[in-house]
Amino acid sequence: MSERSFVQSLNAVCESHRSLVCVGLDPDPARMPVSDVLEFNKAIIDATHDLVCAYKPNFAFYEALGIPGLQALEGTVEYIRKCAPDAVVIADAKRGDIGNTSRAYARALFDVFGFDAATVSPYLGEDSVRPFLEYADKGIFMLCRTSNPGAKDLQDLPVGQPPEPLYMHVARMAKRWNTHGNVCLVVGATYPEELGRVRRICPDIPILVPGVGAQAGDLAAAVRNGVDARGRLAVVNSSRGIIYASGGSDYARAARKAAESLRDSINAVLEREGKGWS
Amino acid sequence: MSERSFVQSLNAVCESHRSLVCVGLDPDPARMPVSDVLEFNKAIIDATHDLVCAYKPNFAFYEALGIPGLQALEGTVEYIRKCAPDAVVIADAKRGDIGNTSRAYARALFDVFGFDAATVSPYLGEDSVRPFLEYADKGIFMLCRTSNPGAKDLQDLPVGQPPEPLYMHVARMAKRWNTHGNVCLVVGATYPEELGRVRRICPDIPILVPGVGAQAGDLAAAVRNGVDARGRLAVVNSSRGIIYASGGSDYARAARKAAESLRDSINAVLEREGKGWS
Repeated sequence: MSERSFVQSLNAVCESHRSLVCVGLDPDPARMPVSDVLEFNKAIIDATHDLVCAYKPNFAFYEALGIPGLQALEGTVEYIRKCAPDAVVIADAKRGDIGNTSRAYARALFDVFGFDAATVSPYLGEDSVRPFLEYADKGIFMLCRTSNPGAKDLQDLPVGQPPEPLYMHVARMAKRWNTHGNVCLVVGATYPEELGRVRRICPDIPILVPGVGAQAGDLAAAVRNGVDARGRLAVVNSSRGIIYASGGSDYARAARKAAESLRDSINAVLEREGKGWS
Repeated sequence: MSERSFVQSLNAVCESHRSLVCVGLDPDPARMPVSDVLEFNKAIIDATHDLVCAYKPNFAFYEALGIPGLQALEGTVEYIRKCAPDAVVIADAKRGDIGNTSRAYARALFDVFGFDAATVSPYLGEDSVRPFLEYADKGIFMLCRTSNPGAKDLQDLPVGQPPEPLYMHVARMAKRWNTHGNVCLVVGATYPEELGRVRRICPDIPILVPGVGAQAGDLAAAVRNGVDARGRLAVVNSSRGIIYASGGSDYARAARKAAESLRDSINAVLEREGKGWS
């Protein structure tokens, strides 16, 4: 991933795998058919790496397992580097703090754990996001309109003149803050209308689209509204829908099938829109 | 801390130590006079525990040191339990994710690391905060008006009819969500006016007040506006101003002096307001 910008790396792996699929690696001992997190993740990665553009481990699930969980997270990033060197690895961490502290978080995610990208929260404003953006070759996915029901509590509040929902204001801020060309956004698949509005504000910024699969967003609408004019720059994440496609010993094969099916469904939408892979 | 509510535990340690001071344990290798984080923290804790009501390690500074940093964080919480069993230990983590994921974060902070309280971000709305609130004996400090310059970017935006800044709207949400009596707020000392407004909305909710010391907030104004009617329920945090009071081998003694001076300055304000310790 060195030398190239994050957007270039993302585009390259999407093109070569003909895929906008991201697999969320969210290990949950209550649902995993094996007890070892690293073993579980390795099997998922082995089974899916040619079908996807990105992996997205969510820190919460590793922290919930304490130090051994975080060691498994380190091992997972290392394994992706070895087994799927062109995949983009996104730290789903939703960090954000005052400048001095965000600098330490950015160091943790990029220098220590070695991620290519991270999700960050915008609630503390520009100086809380800036230390992440200064890693110019990393992708910084700012939360904009999230996939959960409570998203409406703050993100839909009308602000400004003429009034528009806060999440649209955040999308405009993201554009203004994008001095290094590495700002990206997070908009849930569960709200395809909102996704379309954000895409119109930010026509050329990558958007991470969680909420297909277990959260049951409308996939076709999310793809149509989430991609850019060429049918690219959307990273469509499924976590539970892929990694827990089977709770049995065939979990890796089932994950491959689920990832393949998601990739094909997305590509069929792109095809219908005249934006298929060349 | 068992059997009692978080607010009762907080009040008890404040009364017995006659102190509203919280020490932020934010180890920075570039500024620490010793290289071992746990050794550094232990010395700070030994030197300050009778002067303070709380310790607040910020996860960023431990994550930035990788697994050994997180091991030092575990050791720090354990050490506080042993050496300062009545102190409240706040995880400054600013977490927040969709419900399923917030549950994992809450498990990490409370069950795995064993904190008494945590800071959380409100950007994802009620279902992202609810899994933390369900730990009824833990204190949940929601970010409201933070101490950094960028706080204005989102938190000051006028919302609602009649319009009021977003942070005031968040304070009202906090009150509504407080079904377990464990909601608390974070409002920076650097904005004493805003702190006063939040206190009027939430007269009986604990408020964590960072931003004295290195961030140079007006201490007297912050104390006057941050405490409740009895002069309690404000947790006044200083990190760098205490732990880096000296960069030399006398750092623990200097930290004690700085903590004592902060406690005394706060108590002098309480005294002038007729709200001193009985």
